[in-house]
Amino acid sequence: MSPEEQLEHLKRGAVEIISEEELLRKLRKGTPLRVKAGFDPTAPDLHLGHTVLIQKMKQFQELGHPVIFLIGDFTGMIGDPSGKSEMRKQLSRDEVLENATTYKEQIFKILDPETTVVDFNSRWMERLGAAGLLDLSGKYTVARMLERDDFKKRYHAREPIGIHEFMYPLIQGYDSVMLEADVELGGTDQKFNLLVGRELQREVGMEPQVVCMMPLLEGTDGVHKMSKSLDNHIGIAAAPEEMFGRTMSISDDLMWRYAELLSDRPMEEIDREKSAVAAGSVHPMNVKKALAAEIVARFHGAEAARSAQAYFETRHQRRDIPRDIRKSFSPPERIWVCQLLLDLDFARSRSDARRLVAQRAVRVDGAVVDDPNFEFHRDLHRVVEVGKNRIAQVK
Amino acid sequence: MSPEEQLEHLKRGAVEIISEEELLRKLRKGTPLRVKAGFDPTAPDLHLGHTVLIQKMKQFQELGHPVIFLIGDFTGMIGDPSGKSEMRKQLSRDEVLENATTYKEQIFKILDPETTVVDFNSRWMERLGAAGLLDLSGKYTVARMLERDDFKKRYHAREPIGIHEFMYPLIQGYDSVMLEADVELGGTDQKFNLLVGRELQREVGMEPQVVCMMPLLEGTDGVHKMSKSLDNHIGIAAAPEEMFGRTMSISDDLMWRYAELLSDRPMEEIDREKSAVAAGSVHPMNVKKALAAEIVARFHGAEAARSAQAYFETRHQRRDIPRDIRKSFSPPERIWVCQLLLDLDFARSRSDARRLVAQRAVRVDGAVVDDPNFEFHRDLHRVVEVGKNRIAQVK
Repeated sequence: MSPEEQLEHLKRGAVEIISEEELLRKLRKGTPLRVKAGFDPTAPDLHLGHTVLIQKMKQFQELGHPVIFLIGDFTGMIGDPSGKSEMRKQLSRDEVLENATTYKEQIFKILDPETTVVDFNSRWMERLGAAGLLDLSGKYTVARMLERDDFKKRYHAREPIGIHEFMYPLIQGYDSVMLEADVELGGTDQKFNLLVGRELQREVGMEPQVVCMMPLLEGTDGVHKMSKSLDNHIGIAAAPEEMFGRTMSISDDLMWRYAELLSDRPMEEIDREKSAVAAGSVHPMNVKKALAAEIVARFHGAEAARSAQAYFETRHQRRDIPRDIRKSFSPPERIWVCQLLLDLDFARSRSDARRLVAQRAVRVDGAVVDDPNFEFHRDLHRVVEVGKNRIAQVK
Repeated sequence: MSPEEQLEHLKRGAVEIISEEELLRKLRKGTPLRVKAGFDPTAPDLHLGHTVLIQKMKQFQELGHPVIFLIGDFTGMIGDPSGKSEMRKQLSRDEVLENATTYKEQIFKILDPETTVVDFNSRWMERLGAAGLLDLSGKYTVARMLERDDFKKRYHAREPIGIHEFMYPLIQGYDSVMLEADVELGGTDQKFNLLVGRELQREVGMEPQVVCMMPLLEGTDGVHKMSKSLDNHIGIAAAPEEMFGRTMSISDDLMWRYAELLSDRPMEEIDREKSAVAAGSVHPMNVKKALAAEIVARFHGAEAARSAQAYFETRHQRRDIPRDIRKSFSPPERIWVCQLLLDLDFARSRSDARRLVAQRAVRVDGAVVDDPNFEFHRDLHRVVEVGKNRIAQVK
């Protein structure tokens, strides 16, 4: 691929590249670029949201550029000195190494181990010493640090900011200096920190890294950032059936976004498919199934993907339908089950509907619904029942 | 001395003690207190301003409390990472040790070497490592650090504050933790940093140090803080004659302040003398001579003090007076020489007076005045001459 073609390829899904001209210039040199992405040592339980970055690493890798999967264990081994954040619990060296092993198991399902370096920033941060860290802290001013969006907001809201928090962007930037990174990948929320790396590199006379910012992937709800705590995530260690089912639960719109950010298929192919769906010649559920199958195959293999799809189809689509269907209805793409029961006159009120769910009287496609927040998906579900007599089917 | 008497004694000249109750409680324990004062490793060229603290250390020492003369070499060996401050030039370990030797030579003219510990904070700061420093930085918030007066002013004036500057108060406080200081002495400008020490000690479950703040001594001009760069200082390595002469040049008011802060004589004695001067029974110049002699004797010995006084008296007081005195005048305590020439009608204007000085036509007590900013002191000087014909004498 020519440098120009490489650039086009690498721009896929990226929100911002600082700068494209610099990246093109680096690509034109013809020598492999050192591509860095940093990961938190505390959370080796990755979900698809994390893999947006890893997919981008893979694209660089496929173009012949070695990638560095940097585990920020130095700060992880300190924890949060202010003791306020549960998020940043202190890890022992053994825990860090254990997490690194889990990371490797997970990322090597996407990345090629041959051209991936897994590194730890404690390697240079421990050598740095208190003197080196103090020196590093002198490279930046308080005012400029307070320009970072989240710091600015917290400062004006009089929420405490520990001074150590000012050190983290500098440490991340110093990592780029030590790794002589040509490119750093990160989420859009990392913009400030990524740019600090450019400055520190410039200061030591190094060519500044290009920063490539990827979007934060929405969870299955299509609204919030994918996160385990919101339960809108698809874990990459999840069982094939769950992974397939959760992917099938996303909206058609979100499906195209997932395809752009997570699929290995060329963008041209995806764009053609999108046109076909728009024209009505392809059903979106088939596109979604292919996407779900690709994702499951990535983490569990092709065989598991096939059987997860079969399981899904049996469970959700080919289930025996009660003979005595009393009603048929046209639901929106997704609807809250209690609202649906109300719309169908199966319940007198939403609270009545909640009671029915709590009493385990409600079934969807034959399975008892025991979560009052359950959503009925037009593409997944067909039949809703309350007790023996109230039955309705999607038209 | 009882604890109450000790407290009274130690309060001499102090601007603020936080808190007197705590100090009294510590004194009542009957065990020696560990008294810390920190010094900059870059400036071993002490002047009397620095000795205000050292005199206070001596008072503690005389009451049986060991004192720690702490040289902040750790930061000194880093210099100013922002590269902006000439003040904080980077020192090598050899330079630090050399400075320490000079310090010792100077301070042991005041302190008893037997119960003085000279220590260096690099001893624990180097062991601390980057991890320890990061941890330390988490003990304090950005907002609280920006409450420090000078930081607040600089921040609002949009002057850059390096993040490393936020670390210095924490390092100073950590020094108190490592030294288990019971008392820390410092100038009033150090209040914030001294209080950080109390907090860090409290945080590790240590009884917080009492902080005892001494005033910043005015220089010989009686206006500005004593400082070498303003040339209003009295260096403790200065020759006896210069030291004596500069001390004699201070105003009568400032003389009492110097006596309180620098003399070893009991306050009761000084107060009695002050009353005698007010009543007209003692001439202030004699008090000033005794103070100057005490100071010179401290740094150069009694013999040198006597000969410095003799030199002063010959040079400034017993000089042969021109026979042909044309005028006599009553000057204020001190007056700018050019103004004096104008008042005496020896010059047509101030600029004319400046010209006369530049032409070396002006003499005071027989010595050519070549500094156009020279001040005529009523207590020091007697005769002013311009050329051969214009001569005037203090009444």
